[in-house]
Amino acid sequence: MPRNKSDKPNSRRPGRGKRGTAPGDARRNPYAVPECETLYGLHTVLEALGNPRRKVRRFLASENAAKRFETQIAASGHQPEVVRTSEITRMTGPDAVHQGLLLDASPLPAPELSQLIARPGPIVVLDQITDPHNVGAVLRSCAAFAAAGLVMTARHSPSASSVLAKSASGALEHVPIAKVTNLARAIEELKDSGVHCVGLDSDADDILEHAVSGDGRTALVLGAEGKGLRQKTRETCSVLVRLDMPGAIRSLNVSNAAALALYIATHA
Amino acid sequence: MPRNKSDKPNSRRPGRGKRGTAPGDARRNPYAVPECETLYGLHTVLEALGNPRRKVRRFLASENAAKRFETQIAASGHQPEVVRTSEITRMTGPDAVHQGLLLDASPLPAPELSQLIARPGPIVVLDQITDPHNVGAVLRSCAAFAAAGLVMTARHSPSASSVLAKSASGALEHVPIAKVTNLARAIEELKDSGVHCVGLDSDADDILEHAVSGDGRTALVLGAEGKGLRQKTRETCSVLVRLDMPGAIRSLNVSNAAALALYIATHA
Repeated sequence: MPRNKSDKPNSRRPGRGKRGTAPGDARRNPYAVPECETLYGLHTVLEALGNPRRKVRRFLASENAAKRFETQIAASGHQPEVVRTSEITRMTGPDAVHQGLLLDASPLPAPELSQLIARPGPIVVLDQITDPHNVGAVLRSCAAFAAAGLVMTARHSPSASSVLAKSASGALEHVPIAKVTNLARAIEELKDSGVHCVGLDSDADDILEHAVSGDGRTALVLGAEGKGLRQKTRETCSVLVRLDMPGAIRSLNVSNAAALALYIATHA
Repeated sequence: MPRNKSDKPNSRRPGRGKRGTAPGDARRNPYAVPECETLYGLHTVLEALGNPRRKVRRFLASENAAKRFETQIAASGHQPEVVRTSEITRMTGPDAVHQGLLLDASPLPAPELSQLIARPGPIVVLDQITDPHNVGAVLRSCAAFAAAGLVMTARHSPSASSVLAKSASGALEHVPIAKVTNLARAIEELKDSGVHCVGLDSDADDILEHAVSGDGRTALVLGAEGKGLRQKTRETCSVLVRLDMPGAIRSLNVSNAAALALYIATHA
């Protein structure tokens, strides 16, 4: 399968050994993309089954799940292999809320930044957010607010794709993710394409509402909690603004901040 | 320590054995409140140290943390007992991001619903949200938007207070939590006190913006993902509305929905 450069970081996922990686590729190229990714949970699996760009390799359901979600599974047009719940748990690990559904499917193509810019809607840019639960929740908000897509750094981004996919609750199928090696350069490319790059910074003087009142394209740039945006990222943004919060603690969980920023950007 | 009825559910936290529970109380009353709760993480510990209603029993810092956060610790007026990192990890469990800081402190008093109504700001009501990470993030948003407080059911609410506190990132010290045995009755009490009780329901016809345009007090009532609001809760709310989302997936993580609802309620 031909892959572009931005696919490379996918190889940083924890390996699933020979089962998940084409052995030939692995010998030739240590950055090879795994041929399959493992998805679990009701919404995550159903949305992936409904995505024609996914090639289904294996679809497992526990007996309970096959009965409980019979209608939804039938509507997907796919027939699960019914196995014991413990078999699925063995594959996901004990902490995963898999709801008795597991899918091995081909990963989605990784778009170039330019493909993402060509789509309508705001763009969300994450500066080294590493927690897959947070990135998954951001992805879900991107789907809810019809964002054009998500931009992440290739390094210092979540590697655990199954956890991210579960947390995204199906949004992975709707929101393209561009992985870039240099975030400042990506922000420059966005600006060159006429996208207003708005960095979120709790110390900024102005508020987000004032930066998104125009009609133009907006990218919302968010940093990790605590660390915030890196210096180079801050310098490259078109403008730095804060979220307007009147309370005692002026910082939100990053996925909450992203949801709020997306709402403000789409309701300006 | 005299405790009111609404304290009872606190006893549903995973026990910390004799260390965390007054043995006399435990014999007399299985619902006894533990004398101490364990808090960890920089913001969580610092905000708790700054809360005069907390009685500090033990304050531990790793050598690294004691150096790294020297200024903030000094400003708290408390002197940590410096221990090995592994000692703290032993107490929190291996998955906790404790940042080398741990505090054993008296729990906060649990307010009556009427005390919460007496405070200004919107009220957030959670209908059986069980994930402590989500409830912690909601609490953090409550602090950011100066909410009057949080109402939860005594049962089917998170029991792991350390995880909730960490996720709340210090907000536990700023946002009172009323635990009620009957949520519908609590909503009736809110309505009787002139609070407009707005239930979030993705199938509702109208949008939240139209329900909070007045000047009055608002309570935002949120249910668990998937299950949503229980039938009795839905029937008791003043009005049911949805969040306005244009995208392919019309549901948010519950803490993201709460942040958004709080923003809309406080910016109406």
